[in-house]
Amino acid sequence: MAHEMDIKDFRFDGKGHMSIRDCKTSLHLSDEDKPIYQELTRVNTERMGELQDKLYAQKREGLVVLLQAMDAAGKDSTIKHVMSGVNPQGVIVHSFKQPTSLELSHDFLWRAACNLPARGMIGLFNRSYYEDVLVVRVHQIWKDYELPKRCLNDSEDEFFGKRFRQIRDFEEYLYENGYRVLKIFLNVGQDEQKKRFMERIEDPRKNWKFSAGDLDDRALWPKYMKAYEEAINATATEHAPWYVLPADQKWFTRWLVSEAIVDTLEKMDPHYPEMPDEEKAKLDDCKARLLSE
Amino acid sequence: MAHEMDIKDFRFDGKGHMSIRDCKTSLHLSDEDKPIYQELTRVNTERMGELQDKLYAQKREGLVVLLQAMDAAGKDSTIKHVMSGVNPQGVIVHSFKQPTSLELSHDFLWRAACNLPARGMIGLFNRSYYEDVLVVRVHQIWKDYELPKRCLNDSEDEFFGKRFRQIRDFEEYLYENGYRVLKIFLNVGQDEQKKRFMERIEDPRKNWKFSAGDLDDRALWPKYMKAYEEAINATATEHAPWYVLPADQKWFTRWLVSEAIVDTLEKMDPHYPEMPDEEKAKLDDCKARLLSE
Repeated sequence: MAHEMDIKDFRFDGKGHMSIRDCKTSLHLSDEDKPIYQELTRVNTERMGELQDKLYAQKREGLVVLLQAMDAAGKDSTIKHVMSGVNPQGVIVHSFKQPTSLELSHDFLWRAACNLPARGMIGLFNRSYYEDVLVVRVHQIWKDYELPKRCLNDSEDEFFGKRFRQIRDFEEYLYENGYRVLKIFLNVGQDEQKKRFMERIEDPRKNWKFSAGDLDDRALWPKYMKAYEEAINATATEHAPWYVLPADQKWFTRWLVSEAIVDTLEKMDPHYPEMPDEEKAKLDDCKARLLSE
Repeated sequence: MAHEMDIKDFRFDGKGHMSIRDCKTSLHLSDEDKPIYQELTRVNTERMGELQDKLYAQKREGLVVLLQAMDAAGKDSTIKHVMSGVNPQGVIVHSFKQPTSLELSHDFLWRAACNLPARGMIGLFNRSYYEDVLVVRVHQIWKDYELPKRCLNDSEDEFFGKRFRQIRDFEEYLYENGYRVLKIFLNVGQDEQKKRFMERIEDPRKNWKFSAGDLDDRALWPKYMKAYEEAINATATEHAPWYVLPADQKWFTRWLVSEAIVDTLEKMDPHYPEMPDEEKAKLDDCKARLLSE
């Protein structure tokens, strides 16, 4: 199976329209394929480690990988399974929780900008500034924003239309300043979410992952899908593409995520910095001094 | 004199071209005017305090005032004289020094974004991200940036053309998210700078303000003026205007700066938040409880 799959088939870069209805939440792969994909994911994590080591040494380009999804789609476990094995010194994870009052008193991209990885690093955003065009839209939170009147005169479409433009500008700016932004939507099905919620409720070790409020968001499923579809179509670009990945089969999702990351890192093509000749001469000098000790 | 002056005459909002040659460094006011302008500045600072109190209470809009200038143009003393008297709880000053290695490993707007005042505050930038299109351009620092190759293929004009666009986008984004950016260029003359440098060298209490490197920048005066002219013309907009202020007579400059700030705050038109009726009822309730103690 695996050799027939291409991560590019899940990629949206603004050229065509993404219809969430046409995006599968599962490819219904056979359980027999599971060990194959697990092995392929392991190989990808290893490759990721090699590339990240070069990225870190060269310090010229930074990578932001952001994960968006409905609850229980597997954001945390994907990070755990795909990134464990990569040197944590070159990886930084930032989780976007409910915004603090300090965050709310700044522009909506502020917490993303402040938590941007340095160049040379891979920054993983567990949720992101896209929450500001998703949950904020679905729950109509923006209407209660403490902003000057001039910022609140817009209709909903105008308000989020502006935000989409602001996000496109921000991501293009990042690209022009030595970053790549890789955006992943883990597309879980409503039935699969129900199954996972049931596990979280019934398994005491998973209780902490569940809160009653999760069902409120579940009840707003169609509104969320509409918000995702609009946000993805409005912000998918050549330099900051979206990947819409089927998320019902976790082991397959993890492989897809690892493919998207490796693919991006390979495009970035990092190299260990090469020493200029005079620096090399200094190294020879140091070698001689050490040998003569 | 004062009543004939209008801060709008020094304002550039992108509609006309700014020629630095036509911008005076001094209006050659009589020393007799000095106490008048000092008193007018004091009145403005008081007014600023009132407006800032409302801004702070309302917390809906934030103000960034950024000061750019050649050395010894009076950035620090302007902040000291114009802003002393305003409640420091609502004012935050950030000085942009030579960038740290952490700052250099991020995008060039990063340190500005991270040091943005919360809404409700006045943030003073002593120098700013404009250094990245001024000193970085004049000293050709950008050529040694540790960036991926794709970011360094541009000609100088292309590279800074992009930065100008990025700055315009950033400032427009800030405006749309509840901020105003007020940009001030303190336009000091070359002769006046020489005089002030001499004082810094001869007065032991001022020695600390001088460094030999200041003369290197002085030697590049025409290049700096060209860079300022281009940067100001490329980034002066209706919502993020530049003020080019004659800076040879400090007491006059300070009044102009205070005028520009008061003018902007008045446009922002902050108000103490009005309590909704139910909140007012609660206050009455609290009053009754206190009286019955």
